[in-house]
Amino acid sequence: MYRTDTCGALRIQDKGKQTTLAGWVQTIRKFGAITFIDLRDRYGITQLLFGEDLTKQLEQQPLGREFVLQAMGTVQERSSKNPALATGDIEVNVVSYTILNKSATPPFTIQDDTDGGDDLRLKYRYLDLRRNAVKKNLDLRYAVNRAARNYLHNHGFMDIETPFLIKSTPEGARDFVVPSRMNEGQFYALPQSPQTFKQLLMVSGYDRYYQIVKCFRDEDLRADRQPEFTQIDCEMSFVEQEDILEMFEGLIKYIFKEVKGIDYTDNVGRMSWEDAMWQYGNDKPDIRFDMKISNLKFPSYAFPFKKPAISGELPQGFKVFDEAETVVAIAIPGCSEYSRKQTDELTDWVKRPQIGMKGLAFIKYSADGTVKSSFDKFYTEAQFKNILDATGALPGDIVLILAGTEERTRKAISELRLEMGKRLGLRKDDEFKLLWVLDFPLFEYSEEDNRWVARHHPFTSPRPADIDTMINNSPEIKNAANYLAHPYASIKANAYDMVLNGNEIGGGSIRIFQRSLQEKMFAALGMGIDEALHKFGFLLGAFEYGAPPHGGIAFGFDRLCALLGGSESIRDFIAFPKNNSGRDVMLDAPSTIDEKQLDELSLILKDR
Amino acid sequence: MYRTDTCGALRIQDKGKQTTLAGWVQTIRKFGAITFIDLRDRYGITQLLFGEDLTKQLEQQPLGREFVLQAMGTVQERSSKNPALATGDIEVNVVSYTILNKSATPPFTIQDDTDGGDDLRLKYRYLDLRRNAVKKNLDLRYAVNRAARNYLHNHGFMDIETPFLIKSTPEGARDFVVPSRMNEGQFYALPQSPQTFKQLLMVSGYDRYYQIVKCFRDEDLRADRQPEFTQIDCEMSFVEQEDILEMFEGLIKYIFKEVKGIDYTDNVGRMSWEDAMWQYGNDKPDIRFDMKISNLKFPSYAFPFKKPAISGELPQGFKVFDEAETVVAIAIPGCSEYSRKQTDELTDWVKRPQIGMKGLAFIKYSADGTVKSSFDKFYTEAQFKNILDATGALPGDIVLILAGTEERTRKAISELRLEMGKRLGLRKDDEFKLLWVLDFPLFEYSEEDNRWVARHHPFTSPRPADIDTMINNSPEIKNAANYLAHPYASIKANAYDMVLNGNEIGGGSIRIFQRSLQEKMFAALGMGIDEALHKFGFLLGAFEYGAPPHGGIAFGFDRLCALLGGSESIRDFIAFPKNNSGRDVMLDAPSTIDEKQLDELSLILKDR
Repeated sequence: MYRTDTCGALRIQDKGKQTTLAGWVQTIRKFGAITFIDLRDRYGITQLLFGEDLTKQLEQQPLGREFVLQAMGTVQERSSKNPALATGDIEVNVVSYTILNKSATPPFTIQDDTDGGDDLRLKYRYLDLRRNAVKKNLDLRYAVNRAARNYLHNHGFMDIETPFLIKSTPEGARDFVVPSRMNEGQFYALPQSPQTFKQLLMVSGYDRYYQIVKCFRDEDLRADRQPEFTQIDCEMSFVEQEDILEMFEGLIKYIFKEVKGIDYTDNVGRMSWEDAMWQYGNDKPDIRFDMKISNLKFPSYAFPFKKPAISGELPQGFKVFDEAETVVAIAIPGCSEYSRKQTDELTDWVKRPQIGMKGLAFIKYSADGTVKSSFDKFYTEAQFKNILDATGALPGDIVLILAGTEERTRKAISELRLEMGKRLGLRKDDEFKLLWVLDFPLFEYSEEDNRWVARHHPFTSPRPADIDTMINNSPEIKNAANYLAHPYASIKANAYDMVLNGNEIGGGSIRIFQRSLQEKMFAALGMGIDEALHKFGFLLGAFEYGAPPHGGIAFGFDRLCALLGGSESIRDFIAFPKNNSGRDVMLDAPSTIDEKQLDELSLILKDR
Repeated sequence: MYRTDTCGALRIQDKGKQTTLAGWVQTIRKFGAITFIDLRDRYGITQLLFGEDLTKQLEQQPLGREFVLQAMGTVQERSSKNPALATGDIEVNVVSYTILNKSATPPFTIQDDTDGGDDLRLKYRYLDLRRNAVKKNLDLRYAVNRAARNYLHNHGFMDIETPFLIKSTPEGARDFVVPSRMNEGQFYALPQSPQTFKQLLMVSGYDRYYQIVKCFRDEDLRADRQPEFTQIDCEMSFVEQEDILEMFEGLIKYIFKEVKGIDYTDNVGRMSWEDAMWQYGNDKPDIRFDMKISNLKFPSYAFPFKKPAISGELPQGFKVFDEAETVVAIAIPGCSEYSRKQTDELTDWVKRPQIGMKGLAFIKYSADGTVKSSFDKFYTEAQFKNILDATGALPGDIVLILAGTEERTRKAISELRLEMGKRLGLRKDDEFKLLWVLDFPLFEYSEEDNRWVARHHPFTSPRPADIDTMINNSPEIKNAANYLAHPYASIKANAYDMVLNGNEIGGGSIRIFQRSLQEKMFAALGMGIDEALHKFGFLLGAFEYGAPPHGGIAFGFDRLCALLGGSESIRDFIAFPKNNSGRDVMLDAPSTIDEKQLDELSLILKDR
């Protein structure tokens, strides 16, 4: 061992102790004839004192930043203590030292606030990983990993490894494939998730399974997506939805406690998908702040059982509203005195292509009760008062109103709500609010193919009350224009998403476990029986031999860690991430391979 | 929840308790008007009693083996107890039941001793996994996983995930490659091990890393090889060989204790590679039994510093020995009275193509001191006595002697030793003997290319004493015939293998951490600087910025589990293994993929 202690270990109680430390040179400060060196390792920083003789020796054998140094000496009390360091009361009076390795000057200094920018960070990831800002993310990641494993172990879950070289059954996202040399012309696929394997394990009787496992999706990359990502993947048998919700809110609460020291004693709220869309405009509401949507006008097909927020109907007269499918509003507290410049800026904000609205209407409801709006001339004062009442606005608020087609407008008001929450400081990194979103539609309608597609995946069960509706009706859509009248449109999934601060951190469902219902599901998705057997014959087969009722959930581990770390960027919580083009710029991968390798795989590159 | 208790939970203390169980029907036994059903789940088996009314109901609603059943009832004391079952004192008097799912008749019964053969087992793996014989293997695997993680965590190791989509740098075994759709004509590779990443983590200062991680090798499959396999992968900084040996024999002893309840208090023996070859004929000796090799004659190039076991030289006169490069013997205790039939059978055994010897010589040393041999006429009695002395044979032993070329003969005597150990019952599944094998040669000579190849991998450091030899000599081999005279031939690796019962379960090394030495190593392996930079530029770069001394080890997790389970077959310790052709016969993978998928990847299959 090159050291007797780490650079984070020594305290005033160790005064007089002979010690050997090894680590990296963080700083070198020469004061006349003596030199102070801060030595850094994974555990901390310890100050080394080089006396006159050793300082002279340093001239012959100079040190630099990031040199790897072994130093022998005696622990002594510091004259000027540093309360910011755990080792700040002591220093090591060095007797001898050895340079274990030299270092070139790093392309950026190893400090919290200097990282040289994204490209340099990724290229020199091994240096970036030395920065405390990144190290604490990986420490947190390991703590989450450990806490999750302990909780799941203590609740009887077994870690069972599932294979990585599986069969390509593209449903939704694209598979990465792996050509097989031994089976010419054939390919394995990398798993998008261990979904079917964990279901088979339930069929096998391993009634509580988990895995913290890499999954792969060959998607067109968006910012902060990675082609390989990690899931906490879980499945249980003999359970209903309620059992899963309790077990896994327990998991997240345990992680909060172990990793962040937070006692999350609140009950985790539950909200139907419909209410989430109605009140927040999206299926993963950030409930750290209120500011709910007021639905002034909306198409009945979207919310057949909902009533407008406004008493009566939105009055006619303002063409923008009259012609809109949907008119939605939010009341922003305390912002009634926004200047023209501020409302113009917000108008520009909603007109950005990412939001895509044509404009923003607003009503300023001053503290003194006066009302001014961007469309004063179209409505009476009573009509404005009626709208203000509908939005629950208080004197001092500004009401922001968007109008347009249902889907875009609802998405836009959701984005606007989040933006205003951010601007008002209502979305705090250190506040954590969990929510279950339930009762998703089982199917979505694909206009392109005039058929149903699975909203979640084809293994999700309908809610118990909807199973008969699914079995007793044909999935065929005879009247495309009126697809919402089809019984399948109202079937709800026995599924649940866990939402943390407006981010989906996990999702799952109670699964189909009857062959007949699974076949019906495949048929509903337009998959013929031959295709179903080719792709999922093993699962249909397994359902013939005593499949138990089961369900599960998968958490996005990278995202969960990022949110717990107070960040929305997953990349900083992955040791060796890829960039937005899916490249590892440190390795320079992917890359070309030898002709010989291609040849052995019986492959030819196109256009060569 | 479909149950209140598991099928392994109820005891006599629960008498009178209302319970709901759910599980699989193991057996149905009808006794007149009543029926006994054994209900099975992951936790055990509980007997259900169906009274007269329910037995009648069963006629309407019949059950079969492997049906999934939910049963409500009362716990009561059994009239005839079954001490073989943990729940054997009680039964559940069923009040009502629900068939949760039916089962077709399984292709084999779910019992320890019926598995339907390998093909059926793999095809219906989800049923095979229900068998207790397989379940206890996966239980053991999880216990080993858990114990390893706990030990490593308690010793300050951090689980850090390394990427799966990396760069192809084939060294030795072939990489599996993954075509990139986003980077046309380029490929990722799946890692053969996280070797370079864990070294980068050491450069980054994460001084104790571990991972239980899947690795991939596209090798021509042999029996009991899997294209994907799991390693316990570990690395430490600021350590020397001794630190690693202590840390990881601690790990294995901890696993023995936690998983098998074995206090392995013996010191773990250490043996040089040369002594292993000399005494046991292979580099992973099974030291559960003695029966060491006696080297009667051998080429000096193989063991330049060893002396023959026999005093003086092996006498001339017996042409087979006279003409052989190597003559080696083992004394088999208590077998001097082997019949002609037995020695003939052994002779046939060594002549099998897998062993490849031309014959077997033997000397029977009877308990009364008389000596008979298969080559009586060639040597004098004194000469035979001399050989017997050399082999350490005692009266009552038979001495088996093989002669031929060095490599083949040594391998053959090693196989013969293991075979005789097995026949004599000296290789017990429940006895565990650990051994470190040290001081491997750093290089092997490749006759084909007249150059050096890495015995371990190119990141292994020479022993400290040999570093200068490596740096100060050119790797060029000017005289191929006399390559053994080259200084590189005598360089030993700073490497170590852990051997358990004659199987290598782990191996590792102290790594090179200086750029110059690493470049010298690449050059020694015939890799030009351009190729080295293309393949490993990131590592050479990292070594410029303060790489610490480091080393590590990787354990073959599948093999370790198999050995702890008393088996030498890894397949039974993997939930979803592939067959000997690398196929998953349950999934039917690998398989062809759509033209559209190929097209998106810009690939064309040859011969189409």
